[in-house]
Amino acid sequence: MNLKMIFYTLGWVLKIEAVSMLLPLICSICYGEEKMLSVFTICIAVTFVVGMLLSFKKPKHHSMYAKEGFVAVALSWIGMSFFGALPFFISGHTPCFIDAFFETVSGFTTTGASILSNVEILPKSLLFWRSFTHWIGGMGVLVFLVAILPLFGGSTMHLIKAESPGPAVSKLVPKVQSTAKILYTIYIALTLLQIVLLLLGNMPLFDAVTITFGTAGTGGFGVRNSSIAEYSPYCQVVITIFMLIFGVDFAIYHLLLLRKVKPVWKSAELRGYLGFALCAILLVSINCRNLFETFGETLRHGAFQVASIMTTTGFSTTDFDLWPEFSKTILVMLMFVGACAGSTGGGIKVSRVLILFKSIIKEIKIAVHPRNTIKLSMNGRPILHETVRAVNVFMASYLVIFALSVLFISLDNFNFTTNFTAVAATINNIGPGLAGVGPTQNFGGYSALSKLILSFDMLLGRLEIFPLLVLFSPSSWRK
Amino acid sequence: MNLKMIFYTLGWVLKIEAVSMLLPLICSICYGEEKMLSVFTICIAVTFVVGMLLSFKKPKHHSMYAKEGFVAVALSWIGMSFFGALPFFISGHTPCFIDAFFETVSGFTTTGASILSNVEILPKSLLFWRSFTHWIGGMGVLVFLVAILPLFGGSTMHLIKAESPGPAVSKLVPKVQSTAKILYTIYIALTLLQIVLLLLGNMPLFDAVTITFGTAGTGGFGVRNSSIAEYSPYCQVVITIFMLIFGVDFAIYHLLLLRKVKPVWKSAELRGYLGFALCAILLVSINCRNLFETFGETLRHGAFQVASIMTTTGFSTTDFDLWPEFSKTILVMLMFVGACAGSTGGGIKVSRVLILFKSIIKEIKIAVHPRNTIKLSMNGRPILHETVRAVNVFMASYLVIFALSVLFISLDNFNFTTNFTAVAATINNIGPGLAGVGPTQNFGGYSALSKLILSFDMLLGRLEIFPLLVLFSPSSWRK
Repeated sequence: MNLKMIFYTLGWVLKIEAVSMLLPLICSICYGEEKMLSVFTICIAVTFVVGMLLSFKKPKHHSMYAKEGFVAVALSWIGMSFFGALPFFISGHTPCFIDAFFETVSGFTTTGASILSNVEILPKSLLFWRSFTHWIGGMGVLVFLVAILPLFGGSTMHLIKAESPGPAVSKLVPKVQSTAKILYTIYIALTLLQIVLLLLGNMPLFDAVTITFGTAGTGGFGVRNSSIAEYSPYCQVVITIFMLIFGVDFAIYHLLLLRKVKPVWKSAELRGYLGFALCAILLVSINCRNLFETFGETLRHGAFQVASIMTTTGFSTTDFDLWPEFSKTILVMLMFVGACAGSTGGGIKVSRVLILFKSIIKEIKIAVHPRNTIKLSMNGRPILHETVRAVNVFMASYLVIFALSVLFISLDNFNFTTNFTAVAATINNIGPGLAGVGPTQNFGGYSALSKLILSFDMLLGRLEIFPLLVLFSPSSWRK
Repeated sequence: MNLKMIFYTLGWVLKIEAVSMLLPLICSICYGEEKMLSVFTICIAVTFVVGMLLSFKKPKHHSMYAKEGFVAVALSWIGMSFFGALPFFISGHTPCFIDAFFETVSGFTTTGASILSNVEILPKSLLFWRSFTHWIGGMGVLVFLVAILPLFGGSTMHLIKAESPGPAVSKLVPKVQSTAKILYTIYIALTLLQIVLLLLGNMPLFDAVTITFGTAGTGGFGVRNSSIAEYSPYCQVVITIFMLIFGVDFAIYHLLLLRKVKPVWKSAELRGYLGFALCAILLVSINCRNLFETFGETLRHGAFQVASIMTTTGFSTTDFDLWPEFSKTILVMLMFVGACAGSTGGGIKVSRVLILFKSIIKEIKIAVHPRNTIKLSMNGRPILHETVRAVNVFMASYLVIFALSVLFISLDNFNFTTNFTAVAATINNIGPGLAGVGPTQNFGGYSALSKLILSFDMLLGRLEIFPLLVLFSPSSWRK
């Protein structure tokens, strides 16, 4: 295990984090929040100094293999969550450090689960930082690092693979650094577009920027206690559309920029994603038609909530915990399906669900015609045996971790629906669940142990399990 | 598709069913239930005549392939549930046929989920039939058919494979018919032993026989409204032990009869099964220690409920829906783990869970040391790639069916815990769930559509999904 390179990576991640805290610092100056100005100054100093110490000298042997990639990414995410929690903790707004850590993990992993019952009393600069963590975590901090600095040479791909979601991570262009640059360019362009469209809907600048961060990272932290309910229908529709946009594989936008429309049109994952979303919106809207005055309003709320849960954003315009059980169950199913691989969204991912479906159908066909050889394919290309195996192992470990998490947090004696959806909402990086963790509730009632377990679930969900398993596996550390 | 042989098989199954109805008929004579005597006479006549018509002439081409095996087993189970429901329906005790069908499917699949709120008003002979379906379904009617009649020649193994639970069905001895005979001999011997032990505890003969049927098949239908709560602690302990015994792979008993102790001792599944059970009993007993007067009593109730749920029997001695959430969550987890493959129990099966665990550990090791070749093995023998694939596809289809079932029954607007555990309790062939389908409740509140879906889930669970998927797959019927 090349520990030196791992700490070197961590050091750079912390330096990037310190630099990114300059934005909320500027925000605190703009809004005249003097206390927060000093809080952010301290946090930036501490984070940068620790980062500098860790990355002071580039190690001689800078080769990193897959396991170093996993461990570096896992440690980087834990590290940046730790230092990212400092502003919450030092400012005194979350006096318990575990709460601050939970909130920051929730931010970086783009979950949006909160322990705060009233966000409107927070200083603007802290709210800004809270939402900005979504934006950083959405596309990934190591992807960013790779995009701007040629630090890691041949090891880059291991870092990108460990951080990027999806069953099979591919490069858009032969060079990894160029891929990372393209991804961030699209990400920034879409973010700016959404801010402009929200401003056109008369949303205040601060709200437009922070809400866009939450949408772009598919995070879900809002700046009002009512989440998105108070904004105009126009803004809600814009957010709905952009949530869906950020749930799509960014490779699709790259193809569109290259004017390759045919592979976009044929993308099985895109079709599946839009198909699931459309069906869910229709079913929910029909099921909830009596809850709102007009069918148009029902459709707006239905589409918003479906897009929010499926893309694992977690915003809400209405308390869906009061919806009929059928609609709530649809939302719970969507929590697991999640968004597309290669997007900023979480969950199991549409492509994995499609591969599972395809393997079931294949097995039935083999049972019926044992002599036929049937190969799995997607988008006209065969699915590698390795990919199918990875999907199966992902599902198995996902289920085991899910079950154990529900078991451990059940010690707090909340009811089964609360515990089940709390884990579903964190491991799939959504935010709100049902019942005790519904959209009008928060995670503050859980014990410190449960909050740590749920924080761990959020990290597992964002990094798709393996990096953390490798980090904590004894066989990684055996010589 | 060799439809003639499929119907021929169905015909024989119905004839066996008609013969097995002679037992409740004798019971109705003993207890002087004249109405039930005529009801059973009619049912036997109808079932036998239909069976005779279907199996009147043995088809010339009597070769059956895997797909015919699946379809024959699936149709046989649906058919025998249909005719087995007649006594409930004709006697008027369940005026709605769907209720009678649900109750009979629940019986044959050894689920034990009931739509009846008061079983003590039923005639003894009907109660006898209700419990006897558990005994028939536990080991399997086609296994019985194969054991007593040499009807199917080379196709026998396809039928046994389709009906027997577990990821890889193996023969105890080279001849399939001898294997079936050995299985039934062990089954009958253990059944008789339990009846004797319960009689020694002063349990009335009728109760001893019916409760033993419920234990042997890991079914769970009782003859009292309080399930097992009214019987003496001695009887409860006997039942606990026998539930655990019937949850073990019957191949283990065959090995013991051959005095091969070493492979028994080394059996990974047996160790896992007993390990899970022991851990669960301890945790539940510690968690529930304040609910009962002494720790001994807590341990007795804890062990009973854990054994009942894990072996998927579904008896209860106390209302575990009132237990703390941690204990209830342990029970819900055990619902999914289930018993050993090759036992009469349901669930995912311990061996499948172990294979999933092993494949996760293998994948972590590969991530850490990509150049090593690691082979999965169990009991010192390698696990076939085919078996691992079958386990993965089983899990995938299991999850999809589980999710869709919860979604469809949520239309009845019961809460999430009720719907989730209703599906868990039926697809894993347990019986009671939590909340609205807890041990003191029943499934009577669900709509006809939900009852059909849950009946389908029970069949899917007992036949381990594939036979029914093949039956309903269009590709099976394409020429």
